[in-house]
Amino acid sequence: MTADTTAYEDDNVFAKIIKGEIPSEKLFEDDVAIAIMDVMPQSKGHCLVIPKAPSRNILDVSDATLQAVMPLVARLARAAKAAFAADGVRVAQFNEEPAGQTVFHLHFHVIPIFEGVELKRHAFGDVPMETIKAHAEAIRAELAKG
Amino acid sequence: MTADTTAYEDDNVFAKIIKGEIPSEKLFEDDVAIAIMDVMPQSKGHCLVIPKAPSRNILDVSDATLQAVMPLVARLARAAKAAFAADGVRVAQFNEEPAGQTVFHLHFHVIPIFEGVELKRHAFGDVPMETIKAHAEAIRAELAKG
Repeated sequence: MTADTTAYEDDNVFAKIIKGEIPSEKLFEDDVAIAIMDVMPQSKGHCLVIPKAPSRNILDVSDATLQAVMPLVARLARAAKAAFAADGVRVAQFNEEPAGQTVFHLHFHVIPIFEGVELKRHAFGDVPMETIKAHAEAIRAELAKG
Repeated sequence: MTADTTAYEDDNVFAKIIKGEIPSEKLFEDDVAIAIMDVMPQSKGHCLVIPKAPSRNILDVSDATLQAVMPLVARLARAAKAAFAADGVRVAQFNEEPAGQTVFHLHFHVIPIFEGVELKRHAFGDVPMETIKAHAEAIRAELAKG
């Protein structure tokens, strides 16, 4: 059994965000990972957790990286749900383009769900940056509660 | 910040599968988790990883449980993709009913994706059990490769 043979390439947009070469609406950062707002959100508060260690997706990631990053995914899920009093939250992780992966650096989507509100299509958002910044502030406030 | 206040209830179907009270098409089992076929698959090879420790979903799970179970999620993703030469794979985890959660015991969906094949609606599968058993055999064969 082998992982996908398509290799990791370090010129992807998340690698650049991690290196600080591209701006992002950051929610959290430590040695392991960063959490940022998705700039093409499928719902209010849609955010991303991105491990800093380079891997293309779950097919090539190390167990150690996965184990380091998952508590932050859970923490963001709780914070995003609380920040917007969402009715639920989806965690989604896409591997390879046919599965919906658009940036080839492992990341987890945290998507608040609101009863009766359809999700927007993935990666086709049209939400003003000011709105996303306000949503980021609400999530950061929840994260600060610990 | 608090997790969802709705408590874990141990009479859910996955708790019964873990206890062996309900049959399942099992792919893998160890002290931490079981992996089984989803009997209402959204795609060929759709399977589930279910930690044995009781939690409702990611909103109340312990970091330790998440960290113990995620390597198995990755392993299943690789095996399911390889078993069916899938073009990609989605990992999805739903929290609370509006987000698509139908069984209130934490579980991760591993969904092979095939270019040009639409996913079936979640929890509305109509695939014969014999087909699901054959798919399980293909995944077990990949897992056995290590």
